[in-house]
Amino acid sequence: MTASESTPFDVEKVLAELTLEEKASLTSGSDFWHTQPVDRVGVPALMVTDGPHGLRKQVASSDHLGLGESVPATCFPTAAALGSSWDVDLVHRVGEALGRETRANDVGVLLGPGVNIKRTPLCGRNFEYVSEDPVVAGEIGTALVDGIQSQGVGTSLKHFAANNQETDRLRISAQVDERTLREIYLPAFERVVTRAQPWTVMCAYNKVNGTYASQDPWLLTTVLRDEWAFEGLVVSDWGAVHDRVPALAAGLDLQMPAAGSRPDDEVVAAVRAGTLDEAVLDQAVRRVLHLVARAQPAVVGTGTFDVDEHHALAREAAAAGTVLLRNEPVDGAPLLPLAEPARTLVVGEFARTPRYQGAGSSQVNPTRLDDALGALRAATAADLPFEPGFTIDGGPSGDDEALLAAAVAAARDAGTVLLFLGLPAPDESEGYDRPRLGLPENQVAALAAIAAVNPRVVVVLANGSAVDLPWRDLAPAVLETWLGGQAGGSAVADVLTGAVEPGGRLTETIPLRLQDTPAFGNFPGEAGEVRYGEGVLVGYRWYDTRELDVAYPFGHGLGYTTFAYGDVVATVRGEGAGSTVDVRVTVTNTGARTGSEVVQVYVRDPQAAVLRPVRELKAFAKVTLAPGESREIALTLTARDLSYWHPGLRRWVVGGGEMVVEVGASSRDVRTTSRVDVVGEPLWGELGVMSTIAEWLAHPVGARLAAPYLTLPEGAPEPDESMQAMIQQMPIKVLLDFGFAPLDRDGLDALVAAANAQDASGSGASVA
Amino acid sequence: MTASESTPFDVEKVLAELTLEEKASLTSGSDFWHTQPVDRVGVPALMVTDGPHGLRKQVASSDHLGLGESVPATCFPTAAALGSSWDVDLVHRVGEALGRETRANDVGVLLGPGVNIKRTPLCGRNFEYVSEDPVVAGEIGTALVDGIQSQGVGTSLKHFAANNQETDRLRISAQVDERTLREIYLPAFERVVTRAQPWTVMCAYNKVNGTYASQDPWLLTTVLRDEWAFEGLVVSDWGAVHDRVPALAAGLDLQMPAAGSRPDDEVVAAVRAGTLDEAVLDQAVRRVLHLVARAQPAVVGTGTFDVDEHHALAREAAAAGTVLLRNEPVDGAPLLPLAEPARTLVVGEFARTPRYQGAGSSQVNPTRLDDALGALRAATAADLPFEPGFTIDGGPSGDDEALLAAAVAAARDAGTVLLFLGLPAPDESEGYDRPRLGLPENQVAALAAIAAVNPRVVVVLANGSAVDLPWRDLAPAVLETWLGGQAGGSAVADVLTGAVEPGGRLTETIPLRLQDTPAFGNFPGEAGEVRYGEGVLVGYRWYDTRELDVAYPFGHGLGYTTFAYGDVVATVRGEGAGSTVDVRVTVTNTGARTGSEVVQVYVRDPQAAVLRPVRELKAFAKVTLAPGESREIALTLTARDLSYWHPGLRRWVVGGGEMVVEVGASSRDVRTTSRVDVVGEPLWGELGVMSTIAEWLAHPVGARLAAPYLTLPEGAPEPDESMQAMIQQMPIKVLLDFGFAPLDRDGLDALVAAANAQDASGSGASVA
Repeated sequence: MTASESTPFDVEKVLAELTLEEKASLTSGSDFWHTQPVDRVGVPALMVTDGPHGLRKQVASSDHLGLGESVPATCFPTAAALGSSWDVDLVHRVGEALGRETRANDVGVLLGPGVNIKRTPLCGRNFEYVSEDPVVAGEIGTALVDGIQSQGVGTSLKHFAANNQETDRLRISAQVDERTLREIYLPAFERVVTRAQPWTVMCAYNKVNGTYASQDPWLLTTVLRDEWAFEGLVVSDWGAVHDRVPALAAGLDLQMPAAGSRPDDEVVAAVRAGTLDEAVLDQAVRRVLHLVARAQPAVVGTGTFDVDEHHALAREAAAAGTVLLRNEPVDGAPLLPLAEPARTLVVGEFARTPRYQGAGSSQVNPTRLDDALGALRAATAADLPFEPGFTIDGGPSGDDEALLAAAVAAARDAGTVLLFLGLPAPDESEGYDRPRLGLPENQVAALAAIAAVNPRVVVVLANGSAVDLPWRDLAPAVLETWLGGQAGGSAVADVLTGAVEPGGRLTETIPLRLQDTPAFGNFPGEAGEVRYGEGVLVGYRWYDTRELDVAYPFGHGLGYTTFAYGDVVATVRGEGAGSTVDVRVTVTNTGARTGSEVVQVYVRDPQAAVLRPVRELKAFAKVTLAPGESREIALTLTARDLSYWHPGLRRWVVGGGEMVVEVGASSRDVRTTSRVDVVGEPLWGELGVMSTIAEWLAHPVGARLAAPYLTLPEGAPEPDESMQAMIQQMPIKVLLDFGFAPLDRDGLDALVAAANAQDASGSGASVA
Repeated sequence: MTASESTPFDVEKVLAELTLEEKASLTSGSDFWHTQPVDRVGVPALMVTDGPHGLRKQVASSDHLGLGESVPATCFPTAAALGSSWDVDLVHRVGEALGRETRANDVGVLLGPGVNIKRTPLCGRNFEYVSEDPVVAGEIGTALVDGIQSQGVGTSLKHFAANNQETDRLRISAQVDERTLREIYLPAFERVVTRAQPWTVMCAYNKVNGTYASQDPWLLTTVLRDEWAFEGLVVSDWGAVHDRVPALAAGLDLQMPAAGSRPDDEVVAAVRAGTLDEAVLDQAVRRVLHLVARAQPAVVGTGTFDVDEHHALAREAAAAGTVLLRNEPVDGAPLLPLAEPARTLVVGEFARTPRYQGAGSSQVNPTRLDDALGALRAATAADLPFEPGFTIDGGPSGDDEALLAAAVAAARDAGTVLLFLGLPAPDESEGYDRPRLGLPENQVAALAAIAAVNPRVVVVLANGSAVDLPWRDLAPAVLETWLGGQAGGSAVADVLTGAVEPGGRLTETIPLRLQDTPAFGNFPGEAGEVRYGEGVLVGYRWYDTRELDVAYPFGHGLGYTTFAYGDVVATVRGEGAGSTVDVRVTVTNTGARTGSEVVQVYVRDPQAAVLRPVRELKAFAKVTLAPGESREIALTLTARDLSYWHPGLRRWVVGGGEMVVEVGASSRDVRTTSRVDVVGEPLWGELGVMSTIAEWLAHPVGARLAAPYLTLPEGAPEPDESMQAMIQQMPIKVLLDFGFAPLDRDGLDALVAAANAQDASGSGASVA
């Protein structure tokens, strides 16, 4: 714990002095950005501001949507870019910088990071999220929270939970089964909460299975506090509370922003009426007071940050998150890094008008802003020619035609063409989802026209979530920069010139078509409900299990060097719920320059009792090696990493049997594989009258007790193969209803009681 | 109504004389196949027997699973084959024949037909079902019920509802949203009930959204009786009732088979305790008595049927349901019909050991059995050579190798090879699902070896549900016979020799791979629940909307002639809920022989407020034309045919706008298209505090009343494109919570009341 733990006022003493009305008032904000002060007892207001990739502290205290002008702050790469680095040390350093800026601005809590899973590339807010995979999202989120909180200010892990779209976000109910929640949508939150204890968790706008997240006791108390031992405060997303009393009872501590006196009055009335336990209110107030208290050292102290140093860090991070999708040879050599950077033509409005962040609450007022064109000219010390080529908003066709004609004319005689394409800003925002998967038609047309006159085209993309790339064969090299923050322009120049390697790997699959995506047909929902029909088959879990072709798989990304993998050695220790697997693999830089590799460890569980994704990422390591250098990577898979959520037993289980450890450079570039035998847990449940014959026979006690009743009656024909298969699936009650065995219903009830009375070393829960 | 309506006893008089115990006893069977008699008041027992494609009347009164030997009856083609005829007149004649056999055996109710939708090709019972499309299933089901009941005996429309798999069928809960039920899983039942009034409906084994179908008042009463006006009796599937009292209360009239005295005792006790209204029991008993009474003329009378005539009808129907999937030219001419039938080699055990029906309760003891080999030899008057080629059960590899070697040797010098392949019988049964999508490996190996020495291979398939055909390029002609009943052997000879055309069209898509099928990943469920994650995208609705390649599309099937389509003319009459569309199209036989075409009418609704399948079949007509003959087909699409189920309003709505009528020979062979403008219904719902700004502005009254509050506050920056899109999706309450407008919560409540008080000509239901 940090110095911020020192408290300038005694929380319990203050709590004891507060009136009921004051306590109720403390569970909502005083305005858009501040908690409620209680001057009478010396409790100050605490300011919180938007994040997550930079501080958005409004200049005025509040406007009507909280989206007015903000003080300058470093705009780091968005989560999409930062996550693509797969570099937890780097992300921790970015977190520290964010914490310093927060502290320097006397703000107590930075409202981030967001670790929601990218269920569909169309989610308008994907640029604020990390990955389609919970392990990546959880690891990056943990590093950010740790980094920010190391500076004595708080974070808000958001948006808890199942907030995977913007369409109708304030009302939509995510209809999602528990196994899918447990395996896909909750574990990133779980990892961050259990490892980094964020000061606050922000509940989502949406409903989960019909209940507003802000009023869901299962989510906010059972899972978050009872199971994960969360110690901090639960704050609402801004405007997410619609009924404060049940929200408080469910575990919501602080409603933001201010929402008039009515909700506070309702709390007072409920306590007076006895419908809300005052102890529940006290607990929420205690958490608010504790939050205010622990932030005091940071917000009352003075703090500064080094603008230049943070800009340099933003630049380093942007390059580390840049993914080189494709780098095919032209005339015998790949186009990147540029062999002759001074002989390039720069095309594309985005080169001088960078797209570097998304719209909405995360929008930062940057301390400065680099553009790629300027950075490239500086790096090459050459006055590189530039043609805009197109208008970002698609402008009148006449304008675009003239721009393109000029670009094509210039491209004809150019060495290499750097073509900067991307999504127009209104395509990606909080508050609504993307209208399409692809780039605007005028940009694709520009690529086609330029590629027709010059085969040396490098496409540089700026977008916050996957775009389809049906045009990719026209560009021998494609570099995905995501939304790289204020230093993205100089970072891409670093990567193109080869000063820095492209360090990113895909944290989201790039599909071939929208129709191939997992949520297609189940997005964005109808009449207030969105069915998570794909279940656990999200992201690469979907594409790999359904064996669908993709443009670029999860985990993919090229560097400027190459790596070889030795044979993976996987060693099982323990058994059942105590199983772990040690994984060792040696990686060697086989290229000519220093570079980094993201070594990915996937697990397959082909014998599971439920349909599991064909492979799931369970661990990864980013390693940087000099040419010829080798290093052994050692990772340990925990029992949880081997488990699935059993929907009948309602707990994690190690099913066991033959499992497969796969190590490689993407979900479709597995380099080395090891089969291991894991001793599974016993999975018997309680037997009942509706348990099938197969279940009775699989139960060690039940099989013995039921045997006398499961023999063929005299004269009955010997069942054939079909009949035997049919009988296996029949509940014992139905078989007896049919008169198969000399046992009436009372006898069966006695048999069930006897079978369950004896310890079968399994769980007591029913699996039926 | 038929003569069976005459009642030999007065139902109401008998009902009044019954004791409570007698009434309770009448709501369950007396044994496996009979209703309970009450001799004291002259109520006889009524016998019912399994169907649906033939009578399965057990010789002994009952064995312990009701699956013992049965009296000989005509085994007509299974529903998979019969449905593939798309010929309602033919199916009606088959129904009449089934009714005659039922009557001749003194049986009152034939337990069929089944009209469940084929959600996955792996459902073990698909051979008993008609289609993946509800219109085809409903039309074929209606014809069968009408035909059977025309003979004075009853039917049992089954299995109601959402019984789409065999795995865990007695417990599984189909988790399926209402729109999907209404658009996919219920309409075939609705069509048959409303048009043909089956004497009984059989409730399914499974649960629907957590409630056993046998105990579901929404299914058995609200939908079936209140909405569809069903007048008959609801009988349980055999063993589907687990709690009789709530089942009776839900609308279940008759539990089958006998299940001991306990359920009857529970009914008596519940009535005595006042927890079950005796009027509910009386209504069920009334329906049982009415059923017994109306069947008396048939079961007490004498009846006969002509075995030869029925066999001939079974032969006609089997050919009509045979689908010619592929008929590529070899040496300039297609292989079928056989140019020189006497010069063929017959290979494949199935040619002499026909697979013609599935396992389980539908298994008929046929009056005779044709095999293709014998039929071909008879038709050609030649002693055609035969090689088994493989064993059906895969036998020891040595056996199979020798069989194949002999077949290959014979094929080398043969003219055309007729290769009979199919699924082994244990692959397809009631009670469990199919283990795989493909043919056994030994059969595919046999095809490959034979095709390697003879390019003239015709594959003849026998299977009850789609198999994948990765090998299809090896066989220039592929003929799918499904499970064609006892005359399937002679029928296939008729088709191969050209005596009869292959009259069938696919009622189910043949996919390329299991991974492409809609339920993949959501089948067969886990821990007692199966998520219908694909929603309404079932069958071709899935493949066409997701633009997935298939082996053969829904509706496909070749004949021995060709057809041309004129331009479709579609004319809208009326508007909103009163809209209809007249569709006229002229079809011409452009080939050299008489043949039939199934003209399919699909509707597209690209402007719907919900995601609709890209096209949906709404009507079809089978027409037989002489060479050169033309005929105009006139069909009318009703308002319902233009509608979708609105999940917010919870009713059918004509969304309207530009809709497209497509006419063609398969879902992917649309020959002619017409765009029509349909005036949609108003779809406003009631406004509320959580209605979005967009919803307020779309509501004629709400827009006017809210306008004063939705102007920008003074000094606020003009919102940009992103901001405007975000605001549109915000509930008015949240916007006001943020202080956007001078209206407190009481004022908002008043605004809502005022908006809803005025008639906006929309529905009163909420769409939120």
